Amino acid sequence: MSMINVNDQTVILEHGSGGKLYHQLIEQVFMPAFGNRYLDGTQDAAVCEGDGGPLALTTDSFVVQPRFFCGGDIGRLAVCGTVNDIVTSGAEPKYLTLGMILEHGLPLAQLRRICESIATAATEAGVYIVSGDTKVVEAGACDGIFINTAGCGLFGGRRPLAGKVQAGDSIICTGSLGDHGLALLAAREELGFDPPLTSDVAPLNGLIRRLEPLYDAIHALRDPTRGGAAATLNEWAEAAQLAICLDESSIPVRPQTGAAAQLLGMDLLYAANEGKMLIALAPEAAEQALELLHGHPLGRMAALIGTVSEQPRGRVWAENAYGGQRIIDPPAGLQLPRIC
Amino acid sequence: MSMINVNDQTVILEHGSGGKLYHQLIEQVFMPAFGNRYLDGTQDAAVCEGDGGPLALTTDSFVVQPRFFCGGDIGRLAVCGTVNDIVTSGAEPKYLTLGMILEHGLPLAQLRRICESIATAATEAGVYIVSGDTKVVEAGACDGIFINTAGCGLFGGRRPLAGKVQAGDSIICTGSLGDHGLALLAAREELGFDPPLTSDVAPLNGLIRRLEPLYDAIHALRDPTRGGAAATLNEWAEAAQLAICLDESSIPVRPQTGAAAQLLGMDLLYAANEGKMLIALAPEAAEQALELLHGHPLGRMAALIGTVSEQPRGRVWAENAYGGQRIIDPPAGLQLPRIC
Repeated sequence: MSMINVNDQTVILEHGSGGKLYHQLIEQVFMPAFGNRYLDGTQDAAVCEGDGGPLALTTDSFVVQPRFFCGGDIGRLAVCGTVNDIVTSGAEPKYLTLGMILEHGLPLAQLRRICESIATAATEAGVYIVSGDTKVVEAGACDGIFINTAGCGLFGGRRPLAGKVQAGDSIICTGSLGDHGLALLAAREELGFDPPLTSDVAPLNGLIRRLEPLYDAIHALRDPTRGGAAATLNEWAEAAQLAICLDESSIPVRPQTGAAAQLLGMDLLYAANEGKMLIALAPEAAEQALELLHGHPLGRMAALIGTVSEQPRGRVWAENAYGGQRIIDPPAGLQLPRIC
Repeated sequence: MSMINVNDQTVILEHGSGGKLYHQLIEQVFMPAFGNRYLDGTQDAAVCEGDGGPLALTTDSFVVQPRFFCGGDIGRLAVCGTVNDIVTSGAEPKYLTLGMILEHGLPLAQLRRICESIATAATEAGVYIVSGDTKVVEAGACDGIFINTAGCGLFGGRRPLAGKVQAGDSIICTGSLGDHGLALLAAREELGFDPPLTSDVAPLNGLIRRLEPLYDAIHALRDPTRGGAAATLNEWAEAAQLAICLDESSIPVRPQTGAAAQLLGMDLLYAANEGKMLIALAPEAAEQALELLHGHPLGRMAALIGTVSEQPRGRVWAENAYGGQRIIDPPAGLQLPRIC
C-alpha cells in the first residue's frame, strides 16, 4: 500500500487510481475549491435544476492505453462510460458532448476508426453527440488521443435516485466482474490468451430501463469502473455507515476471465468493469429485478451477490462457500493505470 | 497557406487551428460520423430539448501553453471559454463539468492554484462546477495539465438565438481585439513588454445579459477565439451567403496590444480573444446596444465595427480611413498553436 499522500509535492499516478489517494485529492483539493450544493464527490452524476425538472450532468476523460483492445476501443469506452454514469442517477442519458485532444502525427485512419466506434456506441445507447471540440498538440505533448465526454440525462418526471444503501438491501450485480480490467491488462502486456479476454464495455441504459417498474425499490446504482466492485461497495458502506457482506461463490465470473485472474494473481473484485452495474435495492424487489435483468442480453448473468446489514459499520467483507471470511478493503494505491 | 489536407495520413497541428483544416476535419470526419439534428458544426453550443424547454450544451478542451500567463491561466480560461460558448446560444450558463488530465509529476501547488482560479472564475460567472473527473497519466504522456469543461445553459422561457446574420445587420464588437493572442505570444516567447500584454479572458454572461431587452433584434452572437474575428466573421458570411464590411478605423484596439502587433507583424483580426463578443443585430437596435454595453466594465470599448450587405456573397472585407479596401480571408493554416 502506498503511503504517499497529497501533502507531498507532486501529482502521482496513484492520484488517478480511484482509490484512497484519489479520494484525498477530491476531499483536500477539489471539494474545498469547488464545493456547492450540486457537487457531490461520492456520486457519478450531478442532479441539477433544469427549467422544467431535474437534469443529470456528468463528465469523464478517457486516456486508456492501448487505445484499441479486444471488445472495444477508447471511443466506445468514452460513450459507454458517460452513458453509464448518467444511468446511476436514475436519469435517461440523452446528450453527449465530445472533446478530443489529438497528438500531431496520430494516424487519421485511427481517428476515423475511433469516430466510427463513438458513433456506433452512441446509436446503441440512443444518445446524440451534440457538441464537439478538437485540440491538436505537438508530437510528444499527449499520448495519441485523449477523449472527454460529458453527458446530460433527463428524468422525464421520475425522481432521481438517492444513491445511498439501506440496511437490509440486497446487492445485485448485473453480470460477470473484472472483464474490462483483465482484458486491458492482457492487451497491454500482450498476454496471448486464446480466445482473447474481451472487455465488457457496453451502454447499460437499455438494461437498467427494464427495472423501471422497480425504481422506487432501488436505493443505489453504480457502475464499478476504476477500483472495481471493491471501490463502489466500500464507498456505499462508508457513506451509509452500514456493512456489506458478499457471498463470494455467487459473484458471476466469466470462466476465461476467472482463469486469467487466478494465473495472474489478480482479485476480480478490484478489477475495472465498463459494462456492469451494482444495484442496492429493497430485498422484496430482488427476485423480480433478477428476472427483468435476465431477459436482457447484457443481464443474462445477473446475480444476487450480497446484503447490507448494520454491523460492522462502514466495512465490506466476503464469505466463501466454506464459511471463510475476508475483509474487502477499499483499493489503496494503484491497481492498473490508464484503464479507462 | 498550408496545402496539407485530411486526405493525408496523419493529424497535424493545423487541424487544431480553427482555420480551413479544422473545418475540413469537422466536415470530412466528424459530421459524417456523428451528424444528427442537434449537432451543428457551425455553432459553439448545441440547443437540445430538455424536459421543460430547451437546453444549451457545449464542450471545450484547454491545452494552453504556458499554463500561467498575464491576466489568467488555464483554469480561468477553461471556465470563461465554456461560459462564453453557452452565451452565444442566448442561454444563461448555469452548470459546468470539469475533466482534468494530469501528468505524473505536476506540482500540487500548481494544481491548487489552477483550482482556485477555476473557482474564482466560476463565482464571477455565477456558474456551478457540478461534476468532475480526474485522470493521471505517466510523466511524458501529457503536457502537465489538460482541462475539459462542458457547460449547460438554460433559457428560462427565452427563445434560442438563430445564429445567422441578416442583410443590413450592424456588427458590434464588445471591446478591443487580439489581447489574448498577443498576451499568449508574449508569454510564450518571453517578450518583455512593459507593462506586460494582458489577456482579456473573462466570462461575458453578465455583459450580454444587459442586452436582454434587445434579444429579438440580435441575430448572431459569437466569441471570436481561435482564428480571431476573421474566423467568426467569415463563418457568418459563408453560412448566410452575405457580405460583411468592416470599418477598420472603428475596431477597438488596446494601444499596448496594437503597438505589439505592429512590432511583430501580427494582424489583430486573426488573433484570439477570450473576453469579447461579436454581435450581429438589426441596425435600429445598434445604438441602444452600445449604450447598454458601455455601462458594463467589460463593454466600455464596445463599438460598431461593420455592416452586413448582399454582395460580394460569403466574403469579408475591411475599409481603412483612407478608403483603401482589403479582403479578410478565413484563417488558413496555423496562427499560433495551443492558444487555449
